Amino acid sequence: MRIPILKLNNLLLVSIQIELDDQSALQLQEDLLEKIHQTTAGGVVIDLTSLDMIDSFIAKVLGDIVSMSGLMGSQVVLTGIQPAVAITLIELGINLNEANTAIDLEKGIQILNQSGVQ
Amino acid sequence: MRIPILKLNNLLLVSIQIELDDQSALQLQEDLLEKIHQTTAGGVVIDLTSLDMIDSFIAKVLGDIVSMSGLMGSQVVLTGIQPAVAITLIELGINLNEANTAIDLEKGIQILNQSGVQ
Repeated sequence: MRIPILKLNNLLLVSIQIELDDQSALQLQEDLLEKIHQTTAGGVVIDLTSLDMIDSFIAKVLGDIVSMSGLMGSQVVLTGIQPAVAITLIELGINLNEANTAIDLEKGIQILNQSGVQ
Repeated sequence: MRIPILKLNNLLLVSIQIELDDQSALQLQEDLLEKIHQTTAGGVVIDLTSLDMIDSFIAKVLGDIVSMSGLMGSQVVLTGIQPAVAITLIELGINLNEANTAIDLEKGIQILNQSGVQ
């Protein structure tokens, strides 16, 4: 099953509530970029609250999503990163391409609103 | 895969982007009621934009979700019902327990905000 992408005003919301395998991560990347193009959304919030673990491949895909969306003109905020995920990311030396992060979905939307994406 | 439920302030958002089979509809019912209980969300928007078809069982489950959530104190708005789904519902004589409906996710959230659910 594909990860649903919700459109809310000029934002896209993605909530990852499964363990991301390589295939679904790549599928999400493809679907999200396509949806940004379709909807001309100015910002994306990807909520990782339910993501318990991460590996270097998934982290790379997430980082790529941030860079690619940025290139298309859409700003990505990652929210709800769990302690174990934060630990892994730092220990692996992965910086998620300097993605914006926030504590939860609401705060992520706020960040985008403050940068003028409504 | 379970259908993700997003919490946004005091609302829950559900976007159905798969063909709902009987099992996933019942799973959604169970997950959503549990999430309402956990989060004490005052309102729920279920977006059906991507639902192409509906049958009487799924319609009954959706109607039940509306009634059950109402009983728990959470108001449900169904949004984005497609023409074919609207036709089937009316032809089957199903009234979805007088659920609130709206044209899209944004309008659904607006309706809940106007009834005091933020």
